[in-house]
Amino acid sequence: MVAQPVSPVVSDPYEGDPVFELHRGGKIEVTSSIHVTDAAELSKAYTPGVARVCTAIAEDPSLARRYTWRSNVVAVVTDGTAVLGLGDIGPTASLPVMEGKALLFKEFGGVDSVPIALDCTDVDEFVETVARMAPSFGGINLEDISAPRCFEIERRLKERLDIPVFHDDQHGTAVVVLAALQNALRVTDKSISEIRVVISGAGAAGVACARILLQAGVGDLAVVDSKGVLHEDRADLNPVKLSLARDTNTGGLSGRLVDALDGADVFIGVSGGTVPEEAIARMAPNSMIFALANPNPEVHPDIAHRHAAVVATGRSDFPNQINNVLAFPGIFRGAFDANASRITEGMKLAAANALAGLISPAELRPDYIIASPFDERVAPAVAGAVAEAARQDGVARD
Amino acid sequence: MVAQPVSPVVSDPYEGDPVFELHRGGKIEVTSSIHVTDAAELSKAYTPGVARVCTAIAEDPSLARRYTWRSNVVAVVTDGTAVLGLGDIGPTASLPVMEGKALLFKEFGGVDSVPIALDCTDVDEFVETVARMAPSFGGINLEDISAPRCFEIERRLKERLDIPVFHDDQHGTAVVVLAALQNALRVTDKSISEIRVVISGAGAAGVACARILLQAGVGDLAVVDSKGVLHEDRADLNPVKLSLARDTNTGGLSGRLVDALDGADVFIGVSGGTVPEEAIARMAPNSMIFALANPNPEVHPDIAHRHAAVVATGRSDFPNQINNVLAFPGIFRGAFDANASRITEGMKLAAANALAGLISPAELRPDYIIASPFDERVAPAVAGAVAEAARQDGVARD
Repeated sequence: MVAQPVSPVVSDPYEGDPVFELHRGGKIEVTSSIHVTDAAELSKAYTPGVARVCTAIAEDPSLARRYTWRSNVVAVVTDGTAVLGLGDIGPTASLPVMEGKALLFKEFGGVDSVPIALDCTDVDEFVETVARMAPSFGGINLEDISAPRCFEIERRLKERLDIPVFHDDQHGTAVVVLAALQNALRVTDKSISEIRVVISGAGAAGVACARILLQAGVGDLAVVDSKGVLHEDRADLNPVKLSLARDTNTGGLSGRLVDALDGADVFIGVSGGTVPEEAIARMAPNSMIFALANPNPEVHPDIAHRHAAVVATGRSDFPNQINNVLAFPGIFRGAFDANASRITEGMKLAAANALAGLISPAELRPDYIIASPFDERVAPAVAGAVAEAARQDGVARD
Repeated sequence: MVAQPVSPVVSDPYEGDPVFELHRGGKIEVTSSIHVTDAAELSKAYTPGVARVCTAIAEDPSLARRYTWRSNVVAVVTDGTAVLGLGDIGPTASLPVMEGKALLFKEFGGVDSVPIALDCTDVDEFVETVARMAPSFGGINLEDISAPRCFEIERRLKERLDIPVFHDDQHGTAVVVLAALQNALRVTDKSISEIRVVISGAGAAGVACARILLQAGVGDLAVVDSKGVLHEDRADLNPVKLSLARDTNTGGLSGRLVDALDGADVFIGVSGGTVPEEAIARMAPNSMIFALANPNPEVHPDIAHRHAAVVATGRSDFPNQINNVLAFPGIFRGAFDANASRITEGMKLAAANALAGLISPAELRPDYIIASPFDERVAPAVAGAVAEAARQDGVARD
């Protein structure tokens, strides 16, 4: 008679799946940058030698930049409330995304980072928790936090901390969108001050894209949420959307997305959903369509190409991929290189300009307006421009 | 005429100092355990592929153990209130110690760990903060937190979390002391139930040493703080010391350390300060002296050897170094290998037994009662014993 196994073997339906196998055991690890092989080394790296380094930092905290890893390490902090397109899946389930971010920080920017998934969704608690752990880190990358909570969380942490705080879903997206738009304008021979832009989506990415485009000189810009165009007379807007309504829509548009697209030069989709072909057919000649929802763009590129001069998506299997990885590693690399106390609007604009500038006029084509994530010039170019802008803006401490 | 430099070069008095040079840029880094070299890999490690892993964990959180780094990563958490012998130097200045710990976790135990130095000293806030970040980690190693706050913090976090919580200054020290004592008893041919032990120090290490020695069978044990022997009639004891007073000092001692040492078999110093030679001269024949204050033992080994049969210190430049690194890497390795929900008393005793057992009866000598930190058998032996004890104690989930 065969004995029953003491503990049953639990089957794992994901066993052998290539994506899951890649994730087995996690995607990052902490390694020592020095090796302790004998008592003499141990007494320098740990007790008693380490006490002298602690004492020196206690007397002059700025030495932590030089003699700890703090100057090169980012906390990638989330509460798991807006993970990818999956929504509020909670902190534990968000970890694979946060680890992926940490992997990209290191691979592309040489920046160390640590996933911190917080079990708290109250804004006050979130801010307080991050502020308490801030002595351990040189920067805070906020990630996958639902709107509009994300705006207040970022604002309060920026006020409170003297290290860079950066909500990547907002500003990473906005920087890459601006870079791509600058080159799309060169391709279509249009001027940023004369185009009309429609952004679909008034969450983290939509709000930040609108703000950076206004900064960069776009004059006519409308933002559309699920209820229609943002305008001051709408009674259903949260404070962030109301403020945006006041600063945009100089044309006084109302109605739905399809109405706003009539005659528009640029469509930027950061909302998901589907835009009907008839709507994009009514855009201005030489229009530009950035359909960034992932994995399903708001307009499929094959359809967009029937009507637009330039088409970009968030996908790697089509040309012109607008991917945050083009921005955040270089932005933090540059901020760290300059020992910046914050990330200014100027640093974001500089990042976008540097990214756009990687493609020479001779290389520019409708299907090549933005560099590849694997173009090794990207992070150094962005980092250099960001560090320089930090110095110009007076936030560098190097 | 030579132009003035734009920004003056700030002189660094530590430049060139070997200990500081070893610390330059920090001692640890985060590295990716997979490499993303093309769009296909990127789409598996990050969007869109990662979304399937997140969804799977949202449906079955236990999968986080398999498909994230959580199962192998410890937060090394401090508030910087009791760093080495330096006292309350604050979170930033504590970072070199926390990084050193992370380095040792990886080098000796293959455990990833992240220094988290918190800017909060209120017990409620500390507990709340660590509990909120717990989804990111597989274990919590508390470090350099002042007594008696450390006891309440550990107790409450253990109650609240279903992952190992371990205050190393308490239990790491206690495990290694017990291991050393077991072998010292073999060398001196004394029995654990018949010895009289005096512990100098009623902080984190003193309390934990007392508790584990009681568990291990020591019957006659007195703990001494700066005011004298702990006994129930003292009005100045905090609740932790009062509880310890009730469970110890069956001999009804009072008075000072020198009084308690009269006829004692074992002295364990975890307090700093100096014990006069006359006091140790009055200990029992074949006495054992563990003078663990670092860098200045309570009794110098040269003096201790005039009176004691076995002498141990915390220093690497004398025989019998009692160093926490003999315990914590293997303890967390074992806890993680068993996917333990907590670290039990049984797991700590098993760790001590395994550590003591590494030295065979034939090898045991007065100057070799504890293995070297660089003995490669240490962590695997401790880990194996701890994982086995976790299973016996019903806290393993593997």
